Amino acid sequence: MKLWGGRFTSGLNDTALKYSSSIEFDSLLFDEDIAGSIAHASMLKKIGILKESEYKQIVDGLDTISYEYSEGKWKPGKNEFEDIHSAIESKLTSCIGDTAGKLHTGRSRNDQVITDVRLWAKKHSLLIMQAIRQTQSVLVALAADTTEVIMPGYTHMQQAQPVSFAFHLLAYVEMLERDYKRFAFVFGESDQSPLGSGALAGSTIPLDRYHTAETLGFASIAKNALDAVSDRDFIIDFVHSCSVGMLHLSRFAEEIIIWSSQEWNFIKLGDAVSTGSSLMPQKKNPDLAELLRGKTARVLGQDMALKTLIKGLPLSYNRDLQEDKEPLFNSAQTYYDSLCVVQLILQNCSLQPDRFSKELEGSFIFSTDLADWLVLQDVPFRKAHHIVGEIVRYCEKNNKKMNQLTLTELHTFDPHFNESVFAIFNLAASLKRKITVGSPNPDLVKKEIAGWNKIIGDAPATKS
Amino acid sequence: MKLWGGRFTSGLNDTALKYSSSIEFDSLLFDEDIAGSIAHASMLKKIGILKESEYKQIVDGLDTISYEYSEGKWKPGKNEFEDIHSAIESKLTSCIGDTAGKLHTGRSRNDQVITDVRLWAKKHSLLIMQAIRQTQSVLVALAADTTEVIMPGYTHMQQAQPVSFAFHLLAYVEMLERDYKRFAFVFGESDQSPLGSGALAGSTIPLDRYHTAETLGFASIAKNALDAVSDRDFIIDFVHSCSVGMLHLSRFAEEIIIWSSQEWNFIKLGDAVSTGSSLMPQKKNPDLAELLRGKTARVLGQDMALKTLIKGLPLSYNRDLQEDKEPLFNSAQTYYDSLCVVQLILQNCSLQPDRFSKELEGSFIFSTDLADWLVLQDVPFRKAHHIVGEIVRYCEKNNKKMNQLTLTELHTFDPHFNESVFAIFNLAASLKRKITVGSPNPDLVKKEIAGWNKIIGDAPATKS
Amino acid sequence: MKLWGGRFTSGLNDTALKYSSSIEFDSLLFDEDIAGSIAHASMLKKIGILKESEYKQIVDGLDTISYEYSEGKWKPGKNEFEDIHSAIESKLTSCIGDTAGKLHTGRSRNDQVITDVRLWAKKHSLLIMQAIRQTQSVLVALAADTTEVIMPGYTHMQQAQPVSFAFHLLAYVEMLERDYKRFAFVFGESDQSPLGSGALAGSTIPLDRYHTAETLGFASIAKNALDAVSDRDFIIDFVHSCSVGMLHLSRFAEEIIIWSSQEWNFIKLGDAVSTGSSLMPQKKNPDLAELLRGKTARVLGQDMALKTLIKGLPLSYNRDLQEDKEPLFNSAQTYYDSLCVVQLILQNCSLQPDRFSKELEGSFIFSTDLADWLVLQDVPFRKAHHIVGEIVRYCEKNNKKMNQLTLTELHTFDPHFNESVFAIFNLAASLKRKITVGSPNPDLVKKEIAGWNKIIGDAPATKS
Amino acid sequence: MKLWGGRFTSGLNDTALKYSSSIEFDSLLFDEDIAGSIAHASMLKKIGILKESEYKQIVDGLDTISYEYSEGKWKPGKNEFEDIHSAIESKLTSCIGDTAGKLHTGRSRNDQVITDVRLWAKKHSLLIMQAIRQTQSVLVALAADTTEVIMPGYTHMQQAQPVSFAFHLLAYVEMLERDYKRFAFVFGESDQSPLGSGALAGSTIPLDRYHTAETLGFASIAKNALDAVSDRDFIIDFVHSCSVGMLHLSRFAEEIIIWSSQEWNFIKLGDAVSTGSSLMPQKKNPDLAELLRGKTARVLGQDMALKTLIKGLPLSYNRDLQEDKEPLFNSAQTYYDSLCVVQLILQNCSLQPDRFSKELEGSFIFSTDLADWLVLQDVPFRKAHHIVGEIVRYCEKNNKKMNQLTLTELHTFDPHFNESVFAIFNLAASLKRKITVGSPNPDLVKKEIAGWNKIIGDAPATKS
Repeated sequence: MKLWGGRFTSGLNDTALKYSSSIEFDSLLFDEDIAGSIAHASMLKKIGILKESEYKQIVDGLDTISYEYSEGKWKPGKNEFEDIHSAIESKLTSCIGDTAGKLHTGRSRNDQVITDVRLWAKKHSLLIMQAIRQTQSVLVALAADTTEVIMPGYTHMQQAQPVSFAFHLLAYVEMLERDYKRFAFVFGESDQSPLGSGALAGSTIPLDRYHTAETLGFASIAKNALDAVSDRDFIIDFVHSCSVGMLHLSRFAEEIIIWSSQEWNFIKLGDAVSTGSSLMPQKKNPDLAELLRGKTARVLGQDMALKTLIKGLPLSYNRDLQEDKEPLFNSAQTYYDSLCVVQLILQNCSLQPDRFSKELEGSFIFSTDLADWLVLQDVPFRKAHHIVGEIVRYCEKNNKKMNQLTLTELHTFDPHFNESVFAIFNLAASLKRKITVGSPNPDLVKKEIAGWNKIIGDAPATKS
Repeated sequence: MKLWGGRFTSGLNDTALKYSSSIEFDSLLFDEDIAGSIAHASMLKKIGILKESEYKQIVDGLDTISYEYSEGKWKPGKNEFEDIHSAIESKLTSCIGDTAGKLHTGRSRNDQVITDVRLWAKKHSLLIMQAIRQTQSVLVALAADTTEVIMPGYTHMQQAQPVSFAFHLLAYVEMLERDYKRFAFVFGESDQSPLGSGALAGSTIPLDRYHTAETLGFASIAKNALDAVSDRDFIIDFVHSCSVGMLHLSRFAEEIIIWSSQEWNFIKLGDAVSTGSSLMPQKKNPDLAELLRGKTARVLGQDMALKTLIKGLPLSYNRDLQEDKEPLFNSAQTYYDSLCVVQLILQNCSLQPDRFSKELEGSFIFSTDLADWLVLQDVPFRKAHHIVGEIVRYCEKNNKKMNQLTLTELHTFDPHFNESVFAIFNLAASLKRKITVGSPNPDLVKKEIAGWNKIIGDAPATKS
Repeated sequence: MKLWGGRFTSGLNDTALKYSSSIEFDSLLFDEDIAGSIAHASMLKKIGILKESEYKQIVDGLDTISYEYSEGKWKPGKNEFEDIHSAIESKLTSCIGDTAGKLHTGRSRNDQVITDVRLWAKKHSLLIMQAIRQTQSVLVALAADTTEVIMPGYTHMQQAQPVSFAFHLLAYVEMLERDYKRFAFVFGESDQSPLGSGALAGSTIPLDRYHTAETLGFASIAKNALDAVSDRDFIIDFVHSCSVGMLHLSRFAEEIIIWSSQEWNFIKLGDAVSTGSSLMPQKKNPDLAELLRGKTARVLGQDMALKTLIKGLPLSYNRDLQEDKEPLFNSAQTYYDSLCVVQLILQNCSLQPDRFSKELEGSFIFSTDLADWLVLQDVPFRKAHHIVGEIVRYCEKNNKKMNQLTLTELHTFDPHFNESVFAIFNLAASLKRKITVGSPNPDLVKKEIAGWNKIIGDAPATKS
Repeated sequence: MKLWGGRFTSGLNDTALKYSSSIEFDSLLFDEDIAGSIAHASMLKKIGILKESEYKQIVDGLDTISYEYSEGKWKPGKNEFEDIHSAIESKLTSCIGDTAGKLHTGRSRNDQVITDVRLWAKKHSLLIMQAIRQTQSVLVALAADTTEVIMPGYTHMQQAQPVSFAFHLLAYVEMLERDYKRFAFVFGESDQSPLGSGALAGSTIPLDRYHTAETLGFASIAKNALDAVSDRDFIIDFVHSCSVGMLHLSRFAEEIIIWSSQEWNFIKLGDAVSTGSSLMPQKKNPDLAELLRGKTARVLGQDMALKTLIKGLPLSYNRDLQEDKEPLFNSAQTYYDSLCVVQLILQNCSLQPDRFSKELEGSFIFSTDLADWLVLQDVPFRKAHHIVGEIVRYCEKNNKKMNQLTLTELHTFDPHFNESVFAIFNLAASLKRKITVGSPNPDLVKKEIAGWNKIIGDAPATKS
């Protein structure tokens, strides 16, 4: 059944129908469409278009359809309908007869569909925000146990300065916090009712748009009908937020992959999050982390597709916009699942806490501390930097560690050196000496953890 | 069933399994996987790893599976297998027992899967090339009927010079020809057998790679195992070619949409390729063309996703690469369907051949011809251009058409004008006066059409 | 001069230097870098690392450099320095000698550069927000004059229902409002001081991060050093916001191009915003609008480049991040200039207010009104829709306009028709009959305009 | 000076001029524009539009301009001209007077500019192909020295099977070979003369298009004027080829970064290709490799921008197309420079040839060899795989290497084991046992190297 046709003498060609059908993916909007129709009917009753009895008939019909659909008793045929919206209206007609024909009064699929999508976006923004909190909670819990587990901090993937594992994990908690804020923004941008905008120009029927907005839980209504039916900004912002979220997770994934290599050997992944090889019996691969990294590309592609879709479209609605749904649905699902997978990986990896302690002892990783020591003896920093650079070169040439140098050797580089300098070549002490806010000093990190625990609160468990 | 597991004590977590499973989309490789396994078995027989009887058992088993699958009697469970390849091996084991365990000798999923994908890419390159030829054939046929149907040629969407509809259509035939060549390139790039490369380093078992390559119809073999299992260039080139192909179709779609607007009113779309509105009873919308334009964004997104996927991956195989399949499959399908839709639109639109004839008569569209006329009277072109520009301004100000100017008026702009100038303000004559190769001169266009008919030959009909 | 080198025996190869230099584009950060250094010096004085006299020497030096740079008296050589930051430090050394070497105490280029970029992003977010307001103001002023200029509203680029030009313009005001909010979000996300985070792990020197943050006008400080030096979210959000902003402008550009075609002929562009052709003397092309549409692609590409850049980078700083600047700078400039160009186009185009009035009179554009009329006679909407569809078909077949039908003819479609129906076929009345909030009813549109004028207030003029 | 204007009463607004000017980047087409004009003039002489003396005057004028430009004596002002083409025509007018006005006869900027770009693309395709050959040559030379340097081959970044460094390098030679073929395709696609297509519809002046094509060295001419001026496929293909080329280099860059980490410690980068830190004196960072990886994102963004640019543009030329040049020029330069940087890195890194020999001895990396050994004792592969998997688990649990197991222990897993099995746990022998074509067997690798040397021949040195 089509929702139009009076002026047509023949139907859509089959190839055309298949090409234009959206029912395979827009069925995800089923619940929202039912809710939207009930709200619309309630409003039509209020303004006198529907009699009480007609209203009841329609709502009962929609309830029945909803029940049958959720129970799997009714499944709209792919070749029968172009979208879930016409499927539901058609089913309603077969359930309750002609009264069904009153439901679409003053409504167009243009405002109907985008209302459904906004409800969907609101719901899934909240679900994602919840999953973000839960992921933070897993990270923070692990951080609480590892404030004194020392690892090298890296820049350019070169060992730079000693940090703690907890400190490293908290960097991800920060990223997730920005993701949380971004989705809060998306939620707000989605929270506007377009219902009652009609096809593009409102209606000559006195629809009460505030009534439907309130019934559906929208905070406000869209103020220009032309814009309301052609605006896809909230979808673009949603998918952009999934993109950025995935970028953060892809950085985590990269680190998991590196850390679980034989060369790094910093973590071991549990069997629950590893896979093997069909040919090489010894393999235990970090596939989940690789997929996480790979699926980031998928979401980036969807982000791009959506934006390219909108470019240069004249107002108002154009059918191109049907292509907005798959990127939205798939990127939301992918990002949500990926957050769950991150939690799973964190819960199924074991740390090798002593992996780096021996390697780092006395290594060049203390160079900045050494330069800072000189600064505190009043050597200008740039000069101190140069002196330590020469010491590094000397050590490399003579195959010595920094803490193996004698005071005599050190004096050949600068007269300020004295016995107290040797105190700096200690890992645990190095962390504690860091005193700026935001540094890996264990006391500061513990404070941060306490702060996060307050923010995260009792984030409910997510499920995939 | 998994193809690995000896070293694992517990299985993959459920969320992880769902996240990593590819069976929902890689089932498209079923036929290719069966063919690949039969070729591999044949080779294992040749080098003595399989006895004749074992070989027969395996091939019979694979044939049975193929039959059951195509008849819908066996459908691998989504939650049971991670991919179609393990599903088939597992099914083979349950069909023929332990002998099945010999099939994977010297083979890894790494070389197995990419062999399947290369076979798929070759097959679908050819299908697309066929659909391109067919689309060209529909365009050329329509061009043959319209070499004298005059329309404005546009630059900047402003009327520029008169051309014919046939000439305009032939521009698309040119674009499609480049698309054809691009897919011929892709076919060539796909036509290399990676089978026998193992996981990344070949084998200690004396696999005869030339035998499997020949059996599967590959032109040559991949020369470096490490590259063979991690190379996805042919997929990137395939999707890029779909992108460029879609770009061309999107330009056509844009023109169909413009031409069928009330303002342009140059073509009318048949009911078979139009849809209506759920609210506005009069609407007849060019939805197919809009979807064509919209789906271009989808393919561009997939192009981008694929490239982003590969960036910065160390050698050799990484699981990220699993994400290569959906973009490949979906963009191939989308482009193929879109070619069919273009044919459908062309076959279901009617031209308004006289739409522009009155409007263009004597209009500014003859300005370049007028300047050229002056050039042939030995006025330097740049001066001629300026003179005609002033005439245009004069006409606009005095609300006159160019062919309404008197010789006296013309002489106020330049003394070279004489009676013969008025001959140029005729549409049909204008086309004929164009004499350069590649111009819309109907005689030249007919020659082009004849040339295309030879190239296109008997392109078989495509089906969606 | 390089800021490192003690441990190196030879310098960077020339090709390498050219490949890695950023001074050609990061000079845009000059002002921010000076401000950041002054704030850092002030803090070093506060914590006792710099004596009062040293502090004064440094600040005087930086002031001199700033003066010489802005006056064009000093221009850092492209082949001399890798970036503007080292150029300034080197220049300071040559100005004031060794004391300059104390400035970089406790600071890394990692936190220095990102502090500069955050200052730049804050400043340019505000500039863009101002340009958005100004563009809205031009649109609203034009809307105030055109609440009764009737034009067809379009869906699928087909005439749908009558709207007013003012109503159409207000759709863009809505889009710009969302762009304004998005940049307000970006401003907030940029407003965090990373200074004092060092290279990745803070410092053993007691830097007062609150002091520098306050001096530079940051609302808060970044809480994790590792995140602070590798976070580029605010840049990604900035460029994303430019993307979405450009998408809106590209829709406007498309409409300008369509409207100024000979076929549409709805607006005429002034000479100040048109260009001609080197060959065709009559041409007057909407080049600015085309460039606007084209430059949208540029910004989308930069959006994508930035995201792809970040994917899979391990923590913390990696040199890849140097590639963040050009997309940021260029997309900000492009979007800002494009907003100015939109204002320019609006100020230099003249409307043909009567273009559509005759064409629309009695046309199918009243179909929805006709269906609504039937609904108000208690015909179920779906049936009314079908009836009007048949009337449209009848009119098309008999080549009649809707308002030319007799009551007798109408009765063959439905018995409810009576004389009062003919009142609906009037354009001005049609707008007035629209009564839902958000519709083109002139009274409602005037109310909207009043509301916008309050929001926009006295937006100061932008300049390009 | 503008090349149009007769019909205009006022000039382009300044903001508009700045927004639309392309002279900052299209000056790169200077040489091609001069060559194109000389060819066009020569043709105009041939068909009698230019007298011999006029032709000589024009060519002398263009030669002078070319000389002055290359010597820096004439530099077209940015605010004076909209593009390099009008700058040159204007300069010619001031050099030789009115005769200059004849040069543009029958030519439009539409065909003029795209002719220039095609010449540029041809030239730069060849330059890139040369740089690819040179890069291959550096790789092959290094491979020739390292056929027996053993390193772990990786899948999933986990040690998989032993390979040689030479074998690993040859994988990149293969990738570069495909890049070479892709640019050969691009060259062919660029090699068509559009000159004589005019603005969109050819000319009424009998231009000899074959003459100009031949003079400029084009293999053929474009066959449809409408397509000729709006086709940008060769640019899209060019930038796509840069994208794919950069993807390959980004994989190499990733490996360089990983290999030079302290954890991997497989290569050491020379000072010529490393940079230091402004804060941390010990740092020696692989910045060039990181930039290489980062610049890949830039080129991908340009690839995307170009495609997005074309989407949905109606025929023929639209000003959007001006945005095609910067992506083309910048991606060509970036890819070319990146190839040079790869050569530089290869020439400035030292291998630690013994890094892995001890670590790999007896490690699980022999698992596949062990399974293959069982297969050759007639154990079905799938069973052999499972047996070895259990051995791995046993070794892990008991903290043993594989070559430390006794025959007795091995017999608990399978009765086929005998003394000869221990021969497989030898690295050098493992490589030699690989016997399939495409494997790391040193003899086969040497053969490949010999083959490459023939293909590469005497690739001339590239320069940046």
